[in-house]
Amino acid sequence: MERGAGLRVAIQGEPGAFSHAAALVLVGETLELVPTPDFEALFLALSRERADRALVPIENTLTGSIHENYDRLRASPFHVIAETRLRIRQCLIGRPGATLGGLRRVASHPVALAQCRGFFAAHPEIQAVPAADTAGSVKELMNGGDASSGAIASELAAELYGALLLQADVEDDPENHTRFLLLAREPGRVEGSAKTSIVFTLENRPGALYAALQAFASRGVDLTKIESRPLRGRPFEYAFYLDLVGDPEREAGEALAELRRTSRDLRVLGSYPEGLKRDPARSMKGEA
Amino acid sequence: MERGAGLRVAIQGEPGAFSHAAALVLVGETLELVPTPDFEALFLALSRERADRALVPIENTLTGSIHENYDRLRASPFHVIAETRLRIRQCLIGRPGATLGGLRRVASHPVALAQCRGFFAAHPEIQAVPAADTAGSVKELMNGGDASSGAIASELAAELYGALLLQADVEDDPENHTRFLLLAREPGRVEGSAKTSIVFTLENRPGALYAALQAFASRGVDLTKIESRPLRGRPFEYAFYLDLVGDPEREAGEALAELRRTSRDLRVLGSYPEGLKRDPARSMKGEA
Repeated sequence: MERGAGLRVAIQGEPGAFSHAAALVLVGETLELVPTPDFEALFLALSRERADRALVPIENTLTGSIHENYDRLRASPFHVIAETRLRIRQCLIGRPGATLGGLRRVASHPVALAQCRGFFAAHPEIQAVPAADTAGSVKELMNGGDASSGAIASELAAELYGALLLQADVEDDPENHTRFLLLAREPGRVEGSAKTSIVFTLENRPGALYAALQAFASRGVDLTKIESRPLRGRPFEYAFYLDLVGDPEREAGEALAELRRTSRDLRVLGSYPEGLKRDPARSMKGEA
Repeated sequence: MERGAGLRVAIQGEPGAFSHAAALVLVGETLELVPTPDFEALFLALSRERADRALVPIENTLTGSIHENYDRLRASPFHVIAETRLRIRQCLIGRPGATLGGLRRVASHPVALAQCRGFFAAHPEIQAVPAADTAGSVKELMNGGDASSGAIASELAAELYGALLLQADVEDDPENHTRFLLLAREPGRVEGSAKTSIVFTLENRPGALYAALQAFASRGVDLTKIESRPLRGRPFEYAFYLDLVGDPEREAGEALAELRRTSRDLRVLGSYPEGLKRDPARSMKGEA
């Protein structure tokens, strides 16, 4: 964990959003939250120095890689300095004194509502009400609403707004995880085992990717993610996202140098401690 | 286009959803629409023979591959028989007689609302109202609402519910495309140039993917998509999605046979006419 008292961390969404929970995991309880309304504002908060870090969701186990954030990251001068993977646990939340049996309307973002179809099927007396935001629906519940109204959001949102957690894990599929990246204006320093994320471009011709991967295969560098993506307005080229185990300054250096010769627009997005759950504190000593 | 008078095509969503527009492109105006509330119901409609085809969104240029639908497709016995790529054009829609200047509230799914931030920033007098569904918000608008109420949805939704298209293309980013796959219980027959989608599993060891890709690179088979995905509950294995140019019965046969020997759980999801905009009618003669 990157401990820094008062480190300003920008997220997309309201306090209590799942991004807020991920920021607490990576930066700790002392962070100063900078909520932003959308991903563009999130990146702006970092470039305009209204925040010291930006926390960006980059992929989800149900819905895939978030290309628009890869695009923003690629176009930005920022560095990935840590990652975490958060299980998206949807919670049924009421006002203090509310009971599950008394609920008639439950509000949340339609994506969250759609993840809880089993719950609504089992409780036909409860109407699902679309809202702009998961955490925001808890905030609204506490500002108005009565014992018949509820919301679906993170446990953190319930705590933060003084609401009542009526039932945890009301989602249909427990295998719903979001991977978040922590961005900074300066690169991080990784002392232990590192993971590195890169983006590069290749021409779309048979064998081009195979040739590019040789740089890693011939040196035993392990890849943990690969994904192709057609490039906007360049119909015969593809961008590739690659995560590899290793540090460009050390064991992955030669392979990356070779790839740089055979690909285009290679950008190292950042190197950060390997392992989704590992505590990256030791690599951040200089900053905290 | 797969012309079949009265061919029953299941979609997820309401009539007028973007899936409905994609179904019209692939199957034609004579289709009989089978709307379903969620993706599980969509696949069930095909297996229980309440529909002859199911139309599944599989990836979006902003939000990535829809893993949950890859999972359903992989677990199903169905075959991809056609694909199309639809530009998601968000339209501002009002009741007949409404004007843009008179609008004060515009409803849609929050994801669609978020794609139109520029529009709402330019019209601060208009409140964005979250709704469960894009097309459903037009239906509701026509069932109630007045000249100060609007919705954001497809042009098709405006036509279908007799509403007024006030402004087309109110989305911020015109590069928003969704790729849809058309599924059937029986494989399609492709007479011209084919594209084939496969899914397979590899152990996560350095060089495993490189070795697997050799099957294609050594034979000059062109890949148009590759994506890795960690497997649930199998931490050292990855699933790969691959789209290639070629037909398993013809030019891609040898490469697939080799891959079948070196990978696990290889499943050919289907072969279908190459080219996102090409008319697949000629390959469907037997069915129409």
